[in-house]
Amino acid sequence: MSSDAITAGRNRVLITGASGFIGNRCLRPLLDKGFEVHALPSRPVVTMAAEAASPLTWHRLDLLVAGAASALLRELRPTHLLHLAWCAKPGEFWSSEDNFLWLSASQELFRAFYANGGQRAVGVGTCAEYQRVEEDCDELHTPLHPDTIYGRCKLAASLVLEAAAVASRGSAAWARVFFPYGPGEPAGRFIPSLIRGLLSGEAVACSHGSQIRDFIHVDDAARGLVELLCCDATGAFNMGSGRATSLREVAGLVTARLGRAELVQFGARPAPTGDPRRVVADMGRTKSATGWQPAMSLEQGIDHTIAAWRDRLRTEEKTDAYPNRH
Amino acid sequence: MSSDAITAGRNRVLITGASGFIGNRCLRPLLDKGFEVHALPSRPVVTMAAEAASPLTWHRLDLLVAGAASALLRELRPTHLLHLAWCAKPGEFWSSEDNFLWLSASQELFRAFYANGGQRAVGVGTCAEYQRVEEDCDELHTPLHPDTIYGRCKLAASLVLEAAAVASRGSAAWARVFFPYGPGEPAGRFIPSLIRGLLSGEAVACSHGSQIRDFIHVDDAARGLVELLCCDATGAFNMGSGRATSLREVAGLVTARLGRAELVQFGARPAPTGDPRRVVADMGRTKSATGWQPAMSLEQGIDHTIAAWRDRLRTEEKTDAYPNRH
Repeated sequence: MSSDAITAGRNRVLITGASGFIGNRCLRPLLDKGFEVHALPSRPVVTMAAEAASPLTWHRLDLLVAGAASALLRELRPTHLLHLAWCAKPGEFWSSEDNFLWLSASQELFRAFYANGGQRAVGVGTCAEYQRVEEDCDELHTPLHPDTIYGRCKLAASLVLEAAAVASRGSAAWARVFFPYGPGEPAGRFIPSLIRGLLSGEAVACSHGSQIRDFIHVDDAARGLVELLCCDATGAFNMGSGRATSLREVAGLVTARLGRAELVQFGARPAPTGDPRRVVADMGRTKSATGWQPAMSLEQGIDHTIAAWRDRLRTEEKTDAYPNRH
Repeated sequence: MSSDAITAGRNRVLITGASGFIGNRCLRPLLDKGFEVHALPSRPVVTMAAEAASPLTWHRLDLLVAGAASALLRELRPTHLLHLAWCAKPGEFWSSEDNFLWLSASQELFRAFYANGGQRAVGVGTCAEYQRVEEDCDELHTPLHPDTIYGRCKLAASLVLEAAAVASRGSAAWARVFFPYGPGEPAGRFIPSLIRGLLSGEAVACSHGSQIRDFIHVDDAARGLVELLCCDATGAFNMGSGRATSLREVAGLVTARLGRAELVQFGARPAPTGDPRRVVADMGRTKSATGWQPAMSLEQGIDHTIAAWRDRLRTEEKTDAYPNRH
């Protein structure tokens, strides 16, 4: 299916986790591709108004309730599915038992999607599905050997998606997302805590900082997911930048812009148990399947993220200054 | 946990699929290890009397009913679990949608097992979890890339078992069974159809016959599963013989005993779509973890299987001769 076909036709996509960090940034690219977008928020409490003229509909549904996804899919019959919803609470999701619930919910969702005429699905997985390796992670050669509950359940979900697609002669791809950052990233994670700390003049306690990661701007990741949804390629696809950067290098980019390098305290706390030394994507397969390229360098992305945090902190200050205004 | 500990203590095992081809042959080895055995038959209709003095209890339960496994596990609280039940209808199981139901049921079973004090579980998987390779399949190096619904759902179940064990600090191993044969093998499969055909003087239509497989006698496989259950090793373990044999060689062993080689018609029907050329286990890891060795050569196993078929056909003849006797 080409992008032209989508623009011309009436493809309808269901996106889950649509109020989440990555999911929310997928909405604009989906609309730009001409989809009629049906969005399930990650958190039922979130309300987002659709633009008046835009073909975006929000639905209220708890995917963890057995039968809920099936009922919605029977009614909606989307041609496309982009499934991001999963437990994502920082610090907890690695070992949460909720991972099992999300695996079951994903099975129901995938099977109901194809059973109701669904054609093309993209599920969102993680670089934590790979075994720890020193070289770049490659979809076809790096062993899959997750060592967390999260990684195991995500990998299991990828198998279920593939099996569901095969059973219904549908099409599916699985995106293994590396380290997304940018506006909306949960505040406790590395880049947001750096930026917020330096903007507020507070010390930022870090681990040793020599970990090497593959950071990708959330808008690049979101656009990549949508491009993957709009192509025919099947199997697993990395979603990273392909650039290896140490946490110390990232901190250097932030302090080069904000100063206050003395506030960044590497070695002030231990690294998480089992923290891998290096996690970087080989992006060749994704690029050749989709034609996608990241649009933002890490330097541009950091600028963009700092600007978003300045806005957010200004808003928070205003709110604090007028506590009685609503 | 050593075998001595089991013999001395009061370990209680729940075995699922206990009336099935492999499961049924696990009962004696489990009893020999001193387990109090609780058996769930694969087919609810089967009745098997426990020996009067043996600590073997049969339970009636449909594992595919949500909540059923949890209720049983709460009541039984077994220390050990040997999970064989899965859809296994010859010719259908490769692509049956029941594979999804068994994945869900297995998730419930594994989690309920550990939630109710379970210590050690062995799940039964398949060589179909591996990518097709020309060399022997090795648990730590051969890529996992199943190309069937069955293989994908079994691999997903292995991930769920590992994750459930990690979540509860329990112990788990996953056995990848190769090509079990012997008494009780479903009649339509290769070795039974050969033996029955030659014993009955009927032609046996085969595919090209140059496929290379790793055949393991069902009693060796059953004993291997029980040894795996009684050791502490975690991860995946092959369960095969390690011997590479072509289907033509197997047919040669059968005709050397029964004659009538002219009845075996290689090339009379096409090989199944996607039939791999060679599927053979590297058994090093299993042998070093468990101390287990196969006890029966393929030649002895064929003798044993022919004897069992002679008995069975004699019984069938008698039944046919006296249709009104009950």
